[in-house]
Amino acid sequence: MTDKVRIALDAMGGDFGPEIVAPGAAIALSRKPDMRFLFVGDEARVRPLVDADPKLKAASEILHTDVAVRMDDKPSVALRQGRRRSSMWLALEAVKAREADVAVSAGNTGALMAMSRLCLKMLPDIERPAIAAIWPTLRGESIVLDVGATIGADANQLVSFAVMGSAMARILFDIDRPTVGLLNIGVEEIKGVEEVKAAAAILREGGFTALDFQGFVEGNDIGKGTVDVVVTEGFSGNIALKTAEGTARQIAEYLRDALSRTLMSKIGYLLARHAFDTLRDKMDPRKVNGGVFLGLDGVVIKSHGGTDAEGFAAAVELGYDMARYDLTKKIHEGLASTGAAATPGETALAEAVS
Amino acid sequence: MTDKVRIALDAMGGDFGPEIVAPGAAIALSRKPDMRFLFVGDEARVRPLVDADPKLKAASEILHTDVAVRMDDKPSVALRQGRRRSSMWLALEAVKAREADVAVSAGNTGALMAMSRLCLKMLPDIERPAIAAIWPTLRGESIVLDVGATIGADANQLVSFAVMGSAMARILFDIDRPTVGLLNIGVEEIKGVEEVKAAAAILREGGFTALDFQGFVEGNDIGKGTVDVVVTEGFSGNIALKTAEGTARQIAEYLRDALSRTLMSKIGYLLARHAFDTLRDKMDPRKVNGGVFLGLDGVVIKSHGGTDAEGFAAAVELGYDMARYDLTKKIHEGLASTGAAATPGETALAEAVS
Repeated sequence: MTDKVRIALDAMGGDFGPEIVAPGAAIALSRKPDMRFLFVGDEARVRPLVDADPKLKAASEILHTDVAVRMDDKPSVALRQGRRRSSMWLALEAVKAREADVAVSAGNTGALMAMSRLCLKMLPDIERPAIAAIWPTLRGESIVLDVGATIGADANQLVSFAVMGSAMARILFDIDRPTVGLLNIGVEEIKGVEEVKAAAAILREGGFTALDFQGFVEGNDIGKGTVDVVVTEGFSGNIALKTAEGTARQIAEYLRDALSRTLMSKIGYLLARHAFDTLRDKMDPRKVNGGVFLGLDGVVIKSHGGTDAEGFAAAVELGYDMARYDLTKKIHEGLASTGAAATPGETALAEAVS
Repeated sequence: MTDKVRIALDAMGGDFGPEIVAPGAAIALSRKPDMRFLFVGDEARVRPLVDADPKLKAASEILHTDVAVRMDDKPSVALRQGRRRSSMWLALEAVKAREADVAVSAGNTGALMAMSRLCLKMLPDIERPAIAAIWPTLRGESIVLDVGATIGADANQLVSFAVMGSAMARILFDIDRPTVGLLNIGVEEIKGVEEVKAAAAILREGGFTALDFQGFVEGNDIGKGTVDVVVTEGFSGNIALKTAEGTARQIAEYLRDALSRTLMSKIGYLLARHAFDTLRDKMDPRKVNGGVFLGLDGVVIKSHGGTDAEGFAAAVELGYDMARYDLTKKIHEGLASTGAAATPGETALAEAVS
């Protein structure tokens, strides 16, 4: 890596495109000046927004393309129409060519994942990708993966998710051996979670020095922050994430309703306003914006499509951290730490599934 | 059914046993006087609690047994030690013998499910059981199933969950054709959810007159109340349920924290207290206490183990409703409504998975 972190931005991604991407980059740059940007998109729209901010202008290049992936394009359509020429693809290609250290896009998740796999390829020892989300908890933040890339992961794939999530946690939380839990359900002796049990056996006996495996956790452990990294396959992970978002919105609505019902409650709300601001701040989805695509030979960050400039800045800074502290190298270290123990791990797996 | 609803109570179930079960039954009886109870458990502990309330005494019989399933017994242990003689088993046996219309237990879920399957058997056309939870939503309440009985259900099992959940919704919400959604994830064209897609094809084309299939829903739709019945397999359903519980607790803790931080916020809290009481009431888990075991030849209600008398009363009244309005008959009607369409449904299934 050069001394600056080089960030390729899909300027046309998201619900608003460059109108959010450019000011978002400017906010991130104001906090972390050692960034350079490659904006990829429609130059006529991007240029004025970048040039409007002298510091941003000085730190940016623009790569023009007319083609943009739409938010509702199916991945297959996006690939057919946008391969090798869309702003999304070209941002990824800059990472592949080592002209950028990380790509950030607020474009649609399915298309971004499909293009990332095709353009960047998987890391040598990783079979399937994962999307890692940052989850606010009572203890701070945790990482939850996979939240939608790999449905029905097998034991070895779950183990590699644990390794990759830990690599991300080492950077994000600045700890040597993040705690890791496998998401499971509490009902005993029920058939069908063989993969999860087998993954636990491997993690327990595989001698993983870069993570601290804590066994199974349940859905309610995520919000408690019981572990730094919660590992599951993409279907249940996505449902957990969306269900938590839905519950938070539901409670916020109940609360708004209840507090606006009487004069007394309105006055109470005004007096306690600072407390509610603190709460809103804690739950602010913009602060934890950004999913990290793991398992690819290159770092890709997915920002929420509907986010504002502040939220996009958070995704850019997440990308900065992952590149600056070398996520890919940390994943390799995590995988290497288990090399010696591969055979016992496999034995454990064989026992667990037999 | 006789003119009174006959409810068999596992008096020893739950964290507190008869000390909660008896007063819980008394509360339910005060609201729905056309109940009769069969208390099953240690007569020395149960008798004084029942006799203390003259109305309860008049409506109750006691069946003595020394054996109780412990809350932390594994299902296999519970079966070995409690089959044919524990309070849990004998309550179920009363349902099997048609001496009771429904069994209610606050005992451990795994043991209760294992015993229910062994004692009551499955309904003729149902392969696997489901546990249905009542979920508070912005529109009122929805039913979510399965929350932990059947991991990795196939398409036909998901369809039977849809039929059974609708039967329960017809009773609980007093509507003719409950809306039904299949829980899925929003990422398009990802492999691994073939069962869910195949179930959707069957529900769409199978001519189900007792439900109104609305297609896929996502995790955040549950709290919105988008559909009356949300159908999924037991692993993701359990994780969704526990994650929502965890998120609700997390936000409550944030709120408590924020409101106790300054004098101003404390005063604000006092003034808006009624609003918070309303909120607490809305989120009160006791009000929606009770999971319904579906697919068995007999009605079984699982109460939370740690609930109080008010919560247990809610589970008893849920059991009352399911028996009074004949859940099992409504399930048969739901299944029968599709009989004519079995072949197209199967064709749809074959197409969907091919």
